[in-house]
Amino acid sequence: MSLGKRIMDWSAQAARHSEPGPGVTRLLGSPEHKALLADLDGWMQQAGLSTELDGAGNLVGRTRHQPGLKTLIIGSHQDTVRQGGAFDGMLGILLPLAVLQQLHEQAVTLPVNVELIAFSDEEGARFSSTLVGSSALAGTFNPDILKATDRDGVTLESALRGLGANPDQIPALKRDPSKLAGFLEIHIEQGPVLESLDLPVGVVSAITGIERHKVHITGKAGHAGTTPMHLRQDALLAATEVVRAVNDLCQNTEELVGVVGELNVTPNAVNVIPSAVELTIELRSPVTRIRETARQQLLAQLNERIAGHACQWTHERVYEQQEVDCSPAIQQQLANAIATCGWQPHTLFSGAGHDGLAMAKATPIGMLFVRCTGGLSHHPEEAIIEADADAAAEVIKLAILNWEAPV
Amino acid sequence: MSLGKRIMDWSAQAARHSEPGPGVTRLLGSPEHKALLADLDGWMQQAGLSTELDGAGNLVGRTRHQPGLKTLIIGSHQDTVRQGGAFDGMLGILLPLAVLQQLHEQAVTLPVNVELIAFSDEEGARFSSTLVGSSALAGTFNPDILKATDRDGVTLESALRGLGANPDQIPALKRDPSKLAGFLEIHIEQGPVLESLDLPVGVVSAITGIERHKVHITGKAGHAGTTPMHLRQDALLAATEVVRAVNDLCQNTEELVGVVGELNVTPNAVNVIPSAVELTIELRSPVTRIRETARQQLLAQLNERIAGHACQWTHERVYEQQEVDCSPAIQQQLANAIATCGWQPHTLFSGAGHDGLAMAKATPIGMLFVRCTGGLSHHPEEAIIEADADAAAEVIKLAILNWEAPV
Repeated sequence: MSLGKRIMDWSAQAARHSEPGPGVTRLLGSPEHKALLADLDGWMQQAGLSTELDGAGNLVGRTRHQPGLKTLIIGSHQDTVRQGGAFDGMLGILLPLAVLQQLHEQAVTLPVNVELIAFSDEEGARFSSTLVGSSALAGTFNPDILKATDRDGVTLESALRGLGANPDQIPALKRDPSKLAGFLEIHIEQGPVLESLDLPVGVVSAITGIERHKVHITGKAGHAGTTPMHLRQDALLAATEVVRAVNDLCQNTEELVGVVGELNVTPNAVNVIPSAVELTIELRSPVTRIRETARQQLLAQLNERIAGHACQWTHERVYEQQEVDCSPAIQQQLANAIATCGWQPHTLFSGAGHDGLAMAKATPIGMLFVRCTGGLSHHPEEAIIEADADAAAEVIKLAILNWEAPV
Repeated sequence: MSLGKRIMDWSAQAARHSEPGPGVTRLLGSPEHKALLADLDGWMQQAGLSTELDGAGNLVGRTRHQPGLKTLIIGSHQDTVRQGGAFDGMLGILLPLAVLQQLHEQAVTLPVNVELIAFSDEEGARFSSTLVGSSALAGTFNPDILKATDRDGVTLESALRGLGANPDQIPALKRDPSKLAGFLEIHIEQGPVLESLDLPVGVVSAITGIERHKVHITGKAGHAGTTPMHLRQDALLAATEVVRAVNDLCQNTEELVGVVGELNVTPNAVNVIPSAVELTIELRSPVTRIRETARQQLLAQLNERIAGHACQWTHERVYEQQEVDCSPAIQQQLANAIATCGWQPHTLFSGAGHDGLAMAKATPIGMLFVRCTGGLSHHPEEAIIEADADAAAEVIKLAILNWEAPV
């Protein structure tokens, strides 16, 4: 059986551990999660891994320990968003699992010890607290989060205990960076770049930084029939400046994306000139300097353009997350493996957050993206094709066999 | 007492006949309406008018009948929007009433018979049926409307009977056009034009035509972090084309105003590319040809511009009302009176609807606009100044004294 076929079969079986559809809904500590863990544990053991459910609900599968070698952690998350797909997270567990199984069957000696980790929670769909599993390994887990409750008042702590994990042991999970050979995550792209380039895989350069602003534009309501055009203070017209300035700036700046995703008009009536608009701006870049420069340009432009419509505005930064760079050495190793497999090594940044955000606190990280159909993710129709799973597995196999701990 | 002072005093007293504030709320057939009718009846009689409550709830005050003379109808409406102001409608009753009272006290002989009519309903805030009183006089009243109900299930018919009106007599209210010398309405401008020109009054050229469209723009939702800028189909970005095209066209076209007043984004989330936008377009012009040309230009432009954002759109005309021109002869008489009073005669069109829309079916119409503070109307702070009420009353007095029936 090809690696691709095995990955697709396992993915289909894992996707059955879901609340009723559409799509896959598997929340941290749910019965579906517990059922998946049982499957995963069996598959890991078949692959020659010794398994352990740790205190944070991570299922850890270890290759036979070779003294004196550092440990490469490979993994992704078991949980999904509500009505998500079969590959977001799970692909990063099942794909390296298939590779490790094959290497085990072929009795290949690895250049590193490997821990394959199925992280307990990355999406945070149940407890609104993301990266539970990976932050435990990085030593950044905030124990207050154990008291967080879901919609029914169940705490994260009791959900973890329900899985069979003992949260008292979380502090002991912190890894010693000196013993690590890096962290590697395989993930579906969740965007259309690789599809547009006709490539099965790509190397991630960084996990994006994000900032979000709330903007309030104030104009003046007026009768849409009796107020002459030149005396209007139309807040929606002023808001078009924001939507366009964000788009123009991002269209013309490498490694910057942005959107006005939310926009609400007051009073929002067919025959009244809009008096106020509230909207959001989101900017993402893998390079802080690019994002900060863009923000400054944007705010300066908008001060002028909004005033040009006789409107006022206020803006407030309500969220900011710094980017995390992938290790250049790991990027190079992945690119080498891709090239050896006969593909063009394409580098792209991740516009979404991943477990690497936490793991980067412990060890250099690297990520491989796999093409997904139509760029769809967080959606029941999220899909990859078997040939791409196979191609990505061959790349990861090569990368593991040639792994060198980044300096 | 100056005419202006009398008008302001009466207006303040009339405004007390209101539901609890803010502003004035006086709906057709309400106790407040009935109380106002009693005051108005008294004031009309003091002004030497013989009064009658007709079958449509209009209070009609007639000057002493002079055989062989045609009848000039002057009037406006008694009802208000919810939380409206003291002058929208009432000014067109109380201002000519003050003039007629003074002419009566001075025993002046008029060149026409005058009917001062306080129309029962123009706004339609209670029964969603506008122009009840004026359409009865024009012979265009639709008797089905008598069965319309308010929020409590009360019918228009029973509301009229509650005022003491007999709706059975509505068909007999239709005026004989051959006996009419025109219809004249005084109204607050409800816009800022006269204020911007520093003029107390203006001559209305026409009551605007209106058309409204519903527009639906379809793009494609996408993760705001993982979808590259050049692959987006952002429905909100496409919608900015509509907002701007409407504005640009109206800014550059005389006698055309327009607005996108309502706009709703789907899914309206900070980190999701907008997949759909629903919005409204309203265009108003006193000239049908201008409005139709504008519509054609707009739709042609938008077909191209929306496609340029890789979005689709549909549009549907959901409302259309033809414009009504004011009589050139009456406009001239009003302009003459204004000039005689020492003001610059400025002509402007009415962007809002008025009783003249119905009355034009019976007789040539004319309208005088009075400056209102800040262009505000349909608002508790709607205001005029006493000096303007006085100036407008002097203009109307001159116009009545020199009235000639338009041919």
